[in-house]
Amino acid sequence: MMRTRPLKVALLGCGVVGSEVARIMTTHADDLAARIGAPVELAGVAVRRPSKVREGIDPELITTDAMALVKRGDIDVVVEVIGGVEPARTLITTAFEQGASVVSANKALLAQDGAALHAAAEEHGRDLYYEAAVAGAIPLIRPLRESLAGDKVNRVLGIVNGTTNFILDKMDTSGAGYSEALDEATALGYAEADPTADVEGFDAAAKAAILAGIAFHTRVRLDDVYREGMTEVTAADFASAKRMGCTIKLLAICERAADGESVTARVHPAMIPLSHPLASVRGAYNAVFVESEAAGQLMFYGPGAGGSPTASAVLGDLVAVCRNRLNDATGPGDSAYTQLPVSSMGEVVTRYHISLDVADKPGVLAQVATVFAEHGVSIDTVRQQGKDGEASLVVVTHRAPDAALGGTVAALRKLDTVRGVASIMRVEGE
Amino acid sequence: MMRTRPLKVALLGCGVVGSEVARIMTTHADDLAARIGAPVELAGVAVRRPSKVREGIDPELITTDAMALVKRGDIDVVVEVIGGVEPARTLITTAFEQGASVVSANKALLAQDGAALHAAAEEHGRDLYYEAAVAGAIPLIRPLRESLAGDKVNRVLGIVNGTTNFILDKMDTSGAGYSEALDEATALGYAEADPTADVEGFDAAAKAAILAGIAFHTRVRLDDVYREGMTEVTAADFASAKRMGCTIKLLAICERAADGESVTARVHPAMIPLSHPLASVRGAYNAVFVESEAAGQLMFYGPGAGGSPTASAVLGDLVAVCRNRLNDATGPGDSAYTQLPVSSMGEVVTRYHISLDVADKPGVLAQVATVFAEHGVSIDTVRQQGKDGEASLVVVTHRAPDAALGGTVAALRKLDTVRGVASIMRVEGE
Repeated sequence: MMRTRPLKVALLGCGVVGSEVARIMTTHADDLAARIGAPVELAGVAVRRPSKVREGIDPELITTDAMALVKRGDIDVVVEVIGGVEPARTLITTAFEQGASVVSANKALLAQDGAALHAAAEEHGRDLYYEAAVAGAIPLIRPLRESLAGDKVNRVLGIVNGTTNFILDKMDTSGAGYSEALDEATALGYAEADPTADVEGFDAAAKAAILAGIAFHTRVRLDDVYREGMTEVTAADFASAKRMGCTIKLLAICERAADGESVTARVHPAMIPLSHPLASVRGAYNAVFVESEAAGQLMFYGPGAGGSPTASAVLGDLVAVCRNRLNDATGPGDSAYTQLPVSSMGEVVTRYHISLDVADKPGVLAQVATVFAEHGVSIDTVRQQGKDGEASLVVVTHRAPDAALGGTVAALRKLDTVRGVASIMRVEGE
Repeated sequence: MMRTRPLKVALLGCGVVGSEVARIMTTHADDLAARIGAPVELAGVAVRRPSKVREGIDPELITTDAMALVKRGDIDVVVEVIGGVEPARTLITTAFEQGASVVSANKALLAQDGAALHAAAEEHGRDLYYEAAVAGAIPLIRPLRESLAGDKVNRVLGIVNGTTNFILDKMDTSGAGYSEALDEATALGYAEADPTADVEGFDAAAKAAILAGIAFHTRVRLDDVYREGMTEVTAADFASAKRMGCTIKLLAICERAADGESVTARVHPAMIPLSHPLASVRGAYNAVFVESEAAGQLMFYGPGAGGSPTASAVLGDLVAVCRNRLNDATGPGDSAYTQLPVSSMGEVVTRYHISLDVADKPGVLAQVATVFAEHGVSIDTVRQQGKDGEASLVVVTHRAPDAALGGTVAALRKLDTVRGVASIMRVEGE
């Protein structure tokens, strides 16, 4: 049975994502109404540039005053696709005060202020949904929050930034260096003019914080996430990776410690075996690998960005939030009951692939091996290559705490026979 | 805030899945309570063999009278993991009448009677959830029903039967024939003593019916699904597939027609390009590829069967259903509002890979090509191999209606110069 009074939606932001949300709300209005059980109506669209022509959107709906729209008093759901911390935070908080539910795609804001926003939603008995904030169209937040609600997630390992995956894939397949691959990504529109947020891992770190919090039912702040960008990955690193049967990906990794008493979250480039499902994720696609106690290994794959895919996720949330409004209920909210502490990077257990430039003379390997042993790091393989008095030593370790691995590298740098550390890369996914 | 009165769960069936459900409900009781907002209590377990020792389950909970358990009057949720149509159907219907919600893993029953069961759930204002019925632990029903509720799904293409994927993978990697690979699957416990339901595609067809109904918001009955098993796939077919850069998988394919006015659902072996994400799904794993208008291409991957993975899906549903009970609400129920007709296999547009044994003499190719042209089927490639008066002709067609392709093959069989049709395989995923 269909309710006839429509649910009113305020759309904040009308860029690539917002315009797609508006378009689909109009062209697929009948489907949305059937799935929700009531029609949804676009009640207003807040934009920065009102003069821009927006095909398919009634000009009367356009306003530059987002706050007035949110405060109008008749809005059931606010869809926030502005991005950035302010004014989005104030607008969302106001929306809850006004009795609206909120659908957001704002990873930066959620990673920074998720707890406060969830608290505001709960205080007013409303929903805060944000599937689109992580990995675009890929259903991930809902599967973690709901499908796996009866399971215990131990690990989330993902490619959650399309720009950097495009660049690394390019380097892998063409042998290009970082700058060259970045230039191509920029020319094709996969990288922004200022690519810092992507290539330095800030975007992925925000997503890692959100994923870790949901996966482990605890609170993980952006500052808790260890972050290394991928600007220093070289063609030589890819050559080394290939020799090991690996490729290199920028990974977001959220893990529960072996004793279950703490969690970690980190973003850095890493070698992963070519046989790992994440190794074959090409171009700007995203994929997230989830390991849980009962389900085992799951993977979710799809487009991680773009107007239409992100709009798909926003609209899925919009349908859910509207259904909840009609039911006078709310969906699963914040779940941080475990209050597990977040350990630092030093406590993460991982493996290193280390390339050293060393003197080509007897005894060097013994010296180097001694340093590893002194730090309690066990060596898996060593490969030595020498010519003309110069030599390189490639060491792959067994699993050890990152602090011990870091300490080993620092001590190696002090050896007379070690001329330089050419590269250090973690090895994951084995 | 935690409600203290527990929600009472009746577990029907305590085999590989049921015993895992009971185990996790006990060992993870605190987590489940925190995530639901109230404790859940295992109130009774209906089994066939009460004498069997069931570790971790209070013997007082065991009963052989499933109906009495369902009718006890204090059950909030019935978890049905018996399988098969009866007595499961009657038990579930009674559960709704008694005011309980139901979580089921029963694909056969849902494919056959989903509409009636959904109607019973709705009549009594209760939930019917069944994530575990399709692709085990992989979140698929919920993403299709909820995450993609604002999108338009056009295609679902999946490996939804682990037994047959194990067999086909074995044939692919080892060059083994069907019988040999089946024997190994049986020895390793991947195939049942009577493998008919798996190898003849009945299991996959039930899942295809469920997926098509949810994806297209319409009603697809088991009888609507075209079904071909994979017992006739040969080592020679794999060799042909390799020559085309393909492998062979048993696929469940649900499609919306190009004009959007009808849908099809089918299960059959097919060649798919090695570059397709489904081609690299190994062993008994399942994976489902979803194409939708806004999201684009998504893939969901994971273990499709087994006690623990299936229990994970059941418990995720249990948490959701319990939350709904506390909210005095129901989740998204049946959604068949589009009422799109299901077209027959003849209307499916696909490609054929056909191997013909032909006479090795001039003019044969011209004759064969004429038959294709007469049926309006356009040829993509032809490969001719001949020796000692015998020859084989491998024809790969362009896309055409299955009826036209089938008609072509029938006409080819009547040609004097065609000694036999060695194999016919559809080509998908391009």
